[in-house]
Amino acid sequence: MVSSYLVPTRTYAGRPGVYERQNDPVGQYPRLGACPDEHACIFPPDVTQFLPGAYFDLRVELHAYDKNTNHPAPAPFQHFETTIRREDGPWMDVNDFFGIVENKQPALEYWNFTWADSAQVFYAEPLGTNKKPIDVNVSSRVWRKLKFDEPGTYDVSVRYSPTEAYTVRYSVVQPRKPKRKAKNAILFIADGCNIGMITAARAIARKHTSGKFVEGLLTFEDFDNLGHIITHSIDGLVTDSCNSASAYATGQKTSIKALGAYVDSSKSHFDNPKMEQITELIRRRQPGKSIGIVTTANVQDATPAAFYAHSRTKKVPEAITDQIVHGVPQWVLGDNQGVAPDVLMGGGAEYFKGEKSLNGTDYYALLRDKYQYQVVMDKHQLKDYHDQDKLLGIFRTGLLDVWLERNVYVNNTVNNGAAPDLSGADASGSDQPGLDDMTLKALEVLKKRGGEDGFFLMAEAAAVDKRLHNLDFPRAYAELIEMDMTIKKTIEWLKNNGEYEDTLILFTADHSHAFDVFGTVDQNLMDSQSSSKDMRYAVGVYERSGWPGYINQDPYGFPDNWDPRIALAGGSNNGPDHFEAWKLSDRPREATILQDEDNEMVSYANKADKAGGYGKGLLWNGNVPVKYDTEVHSMADVAIYSNGPGSDLFKKTIENWSVFFKMTEALGLQEYPTATDNNNSEKKL
Amino acid sequence: MVSSYLVPTRTYAGRPGVYERQNDPVGQYPRLGACPDEHACIFPPDVTQFLPGAYFDLRVELHAYDKNTNHPAPAPFQHFETTIRREDGPWMDVNDFFGIVENKQPALEYWNFTWADSAQVFYAEPLGTNKKPIDVNVSSRVWRKLKFDEPGTYDVSVRYSPTEAYTVRYSVVQPRKPKRKAKNAILFIADGCNIGMITAARAIARKHTSGKFVEGLLTFEDFDNLGHIITHSIDGLVTDSCNSASAYATGQKTSIKALGAYVDSSKSHFDNPKMEQITELIRRRQPGKSIGIVTTANVQDATPAAFYAHSRTKKVPEAITDQIVHGVPQWVLGDNQGVAPDVLMGGGAEYFKGEKSLNGTDYYALLRDKYQYQVVMDKHQLKDYHDQDKLLGIFRTGLLDVWLERNVYVNNTVNNGAAPDLSGADASGSDQPGLDDMTLKALEVLKKRGGEDGFFLMAEAAAVDKRLHNLDFPRAYAELIEMDMTIKKTIEWLKNNGEYEDTLILFTADHSHAFDVFGTVDQNLMDSQSSSKDMRYAVGVYERSGWPGYINQDPYGFPDNWDPRIALAGGSNNGPDHFEAWKLSDRPREATILQDEDNEMVSYANKADKAGGYGKGLLWNGNVPVKYDTEVHSMADVAIYSNGPGSDLFKKTIENWSVFFKMTEALGLQEYPTATDNNNSEKKL
Repeated sequence: MVSSYLVPTRTYAGRPGVYERQNDPVGQYPRLGACPDEHACIFPPDVTQFLPGAYFDLRVELHAYDKNTNHPAPAPFQHFETTIRREDGPWMDVNDFFGIVENKQPALEYWNFTWADSAQVFYAEPLGTNKKPIDVNVSSRVWRKLKFDEPGTYDVSVRYSPTEAYTVRYSVVQPRKPKRKAKNAILFIADGCNIGMITAARAIARKHTSGKFVEGLLTFEDFDNLGHIITHSIDGLVTDSCNSASAYATGQKTSIKALGAYVDSSKSHFDNPKMEQITELIRRRQPGKSIGIVTTANVQDATPAAFYAHSRTKKVPEAITDQIVHGVPQWVLGDNQGVAPDVLMGGGAEYFKGEKSLNGTDYYALLRDKYQYQVVMDKHQLKDYHDQDKLLGIFRTGLLDVWLERNVYVNNTVNNGAAPDLSGADASGSDQPGLDDMTLKALEVLKKRGGEDGFFLMAEAAAVDKRLHNLDFPRAYAELIEMDMTIKKTIEWLKNNGEYEDTLILFTADHSHAFDVFGTVDQNLMDSQSSSKDMRYAVGVYERSGWPGYINQDPYGFPDNWDPRIALAGGSNNGPDHFEAWKLSDRPREATILQDEDNEMVSYANKADKAGGYGKGLLWNGNVPVKYDTEVHSMADVAIYSNGPGSDLFKKTIENWSVFFKMTEALGLQEYPTATDNNNSEKKL
Repeated sequence: MVSSYLVPTRTYAGRPGVYERQNDPVGQYPRLGACPDEHACIFPPDVTQFLPGAYFDLRVELHAYDKNTNHPAPAPFQHFETTIRREDGPWMDVNDFFGIVENKQPALEYWNFTWADSAQVFYAEPLGTNKKPIDVNVSSRVWRKLKFDEPGTYDVSVRYSPTEAYTVRYSVVQPRKPKRKAKNAILFIADGCNIGMITAARAIARKHTSGKFVEGLLTFEDFDNLGHIITHSIDGLVTDSCNSASAYATGQKTSIKALGAYVDSSKSHFDNPKMEQITELIRRRQPGKSIGIVTTANVQDATPAAFYAHSRTKKVPEAITDQIVHGVPQWVLGDNQGVAPDVLMGGGAEYFKGEKSLNGTDYYALLRDKYQYQVVMDKHQLKDYHDQDKLLGIFRTGLLDVWLERNVYVNNTVNNGAAPDLSGADASGSDQPGLDDMTLKALEVLKKRGGEDGFFLMAEAAAVDKRLHNLDFPRAYAELIEMDMTIKKTIEWLKNNGEYEDTLILFTADHSHAFDVFGTVDQNLMDSQSSSKDMRYAVGVYERSGWPGYINQDPYGFPDNWDPRIALAGGSNNGPDHFEAWKLSDRPREATILQDEDNEMVSYANKADKAGGYGKGLLWNGNVPVKYDTEVHSMADVAIYSNGPGSDLFKKTIENWSVFFKMTEALGLQEYPTATDNNNSEKKL
């Protein structure tokens, strides 16, 4: 027992607290969130919440450095005490508290890095001067696979000198029983879909008379409840998909670029402190339940990976592929055991075998032979699959092609050499499934496998985000409309299969783009002008906006035309230099060109950009660092539409991390201890 | 009885249907919504909904023209039949149906106008060539002050040749009794406030720890329910505040720029077909209820005026001022009788007396002497007012000054000569009330006057919109935070005065701006760079965004600093040429300069713009017609937060016009007929 410390609530603002690690291909090691203290970091950070019995790693880092001398760094902190208390009770050594016997107590680890404060880094980066790297010696301990059994308040403190200590406060929530338990949950995520996108998709996909949507809104707009989600990361206003999907999956915000793990300063991507995912909790507490993960991106991309992988970065797709079945060491499902979803579908074939796969492993063969998966590689095989085995569907290398390439511009997929068997053959757009095909098959398999225990499915429309990054608005609209059609078909399937009343359905996004529509563009007028000033008169705003010329014979489907004379004039508020004429590009838009100039990457407007009018559109000057060749995310809250048992938990404005708590409540996953909790080895409080 | 016609559901898309009236200072007469037919227009348009007993005007127009010959126009249509039927019953002459005796039947009116189709207009406008105006001869009839007494479906048809007719379908809703009647309703409108703005205001006004808002969100985010509102007008994607406030006030979308009226093609601004406002319905059905209208803009501005005025345009502020007490002819409260709100507060003093007032009338004197108003002209008089009389508070000419000018940069109000008595003295920022001052005093007066009958209050924060138009982001944030503080104080007042449980509180916006935040800007770095390319490195995105440097000692108030080194980097996706450095301007921002060049108005980036870095920020190229010197509205749905009895009507996604129906339901205003309905003269169905 040691002396007690006060627990301040700390608000840290500004960028000066963001530090950059040198020579790190992954990017920054941020100090703002988990290391507000001058020297100490504690992961998980202050004000983290936990479910009783959910696992996490605890890491403490001490940073020895001297801002004035820069280098060499002072000797690392050797002596620091990590203590914990519950409900303002007595402080205990953390090993004692968790009943960790002496030979299992973590050893001190050491490493070093150099950093510069953000002002210097940002100033210096483009100019290559003025950097003053500061050496840091790190000493650290990590406690793996801890859990709290009892609800309440827990303080963790690290004292590293007689006068210096840093303390964080956690709360372990009271487990909540659902009012009506959801047997199944489906989490639909349209990546990067802000409210401006939803408004735009509705405007082109739904009929209107006298300005009213007379035949209904988008399918998900009929859901029982509507809420907003706040998307920030621990240490950044504007999140990426890794942090946001991790927050949904684990109940804990992390730093940008991290999956199911906090970002410590160590060099390894995989030794970072982890948090338990809802899929892992399902495997432990409701082992009969089946799990599906479906995406139109690579299955190793941020959103799907956040539901089975733990890594400091998504930029290790080969390792993430391995984690599908093997997981990470010292973690909750046992060594060499990953979530191994019952259904996994998407792109990213190049990491399943061949030179890009981990150690050249053939994961198709491994999953088929050792883990009883069946593997399908095109939409015909997918359609014909009716067995009860686990299902892996990988349909091409890289991202799946989008709706326009699969249905209108199929020729764009000729010579892509993207066949998922890596034969070098094509993965034709007409052979790739849509999100609806994948989702409906996933439901069929998940129901067979989950039976009375139900299922959990995450299905992602990734190209809303990816096409918005490239300012390819029509392809983003189409992806969102395809998501809406998928939701419509899902509801029909659920009703036809007697599962509708027992299924929580969520539709949300993970972050915004600053996309909105401010008028219409008359393409004929745009085409007939040559000066920017005259082209600007082709843009109609307010009463001159009218309604765009999309036609909808099918009141619930895609518009019949994608390139009307009167098209939406919209866009983002940020991005690289580009031309904008709001044309439909007959191939996926490439608005910018990125060039290496004396080791500095610089983006330029692409004069051959077909949506930019072959260089004839309005020139949009970039306002993000020139190395970015795409538009970037924004921070506006996203909407969450919810339906079915538990959906009333998702109304009003909530934070991204709370989605995990609400999903686990609805699914009855908070009950603890349960018969299936493998919690024998840990001390119960 | 005449033959029956089919009722098609019509969807009209594209801009070609928007027509421009020549020589009309107000702007376009749009044909898209109410005139989809080649020759016939019917106002109200197809698919309009009505409350039983709510009044409206019915206008039929016939347009005689020949697109090929252009001019002269053919003779006007002289013979057309207007018929109506209920529930697919027999068609009746509209006069017979409404029991209009022969000498009261409306006469045929005639006028003419010229128009050109939008393609020609938009092409021609900047270049001054190529216009081919088409002459149109109009014949029209208008039936004033009609109402439907019985719920059901009504078709109105105009047959203008043996083979040509145009038919619209209305529905009269079944009156709904509230589950629990709201005695009071408060409608807070933050004009132009999109969800990106709410996210930004929260980020700078609320404390966060580890990226979580540990001391709560904005006040209105605690409300019982959250919904979205679709904002389009009849004939345009992107609305202005006139149409949207009218939709809230009347239950009927109209065209952009119109207040409580449809836009017919006649030359008068005041003979347009009108619809009844909720305030008028209150005066008729709950005459004991008190009505308040409060704004930080002119009281004649779009949002406040939509709750008492009927006009084809807001650009007649002198006439709108007159309508406060005098109303419009042939309308529901009787001749020479307007809504005369119990409380009216805001700016716009210049139309209350002197050379800009209607016929030089002194409306201060008129309201004081004839309508028993007391008049206050600064915040001290406002504070000291404790009587029970009607209250007019007019605090300066033009818009009220915003929070930064009233609290930080008070010197900016020196020499404004804006005293509301038109004496030429100043209206000092320190003497003007804030939205909170006005709202709390309004509540005090409304409660005294409404007593057991309760009150209806509309309170608008206008400068979110007005400052966003000028890209003056900090002043827009402050206005929204002031609105939030006003809501917090309102709730306290309601609780202290025993009204909280009986009050429906709504907070919403009327339309969006395409505002969002995509990172932060390091002002020191921005200042130290000279090239655009280097300045762009001062913008931090994703993990480099960090958190901005605003400090919040008061967890529920304004930030303590408005110009931190690390500031939000945000903006809109449209607007005129301007420089952007995200600085706090020490006076209201003027980002552009508008110049008259050979009779064409052209906007340029203002090099003296203090938020644009004195011309040194990043150059943003315009993408709207060059005559616009401000950023324009966008179409993303807005949020509506609702609390108290009836608030569950406002969850999910709804259309703007339905807000009227939901408010009237909550307030018990739909019950019909009531003892106070002055419906004796009209035939009951």
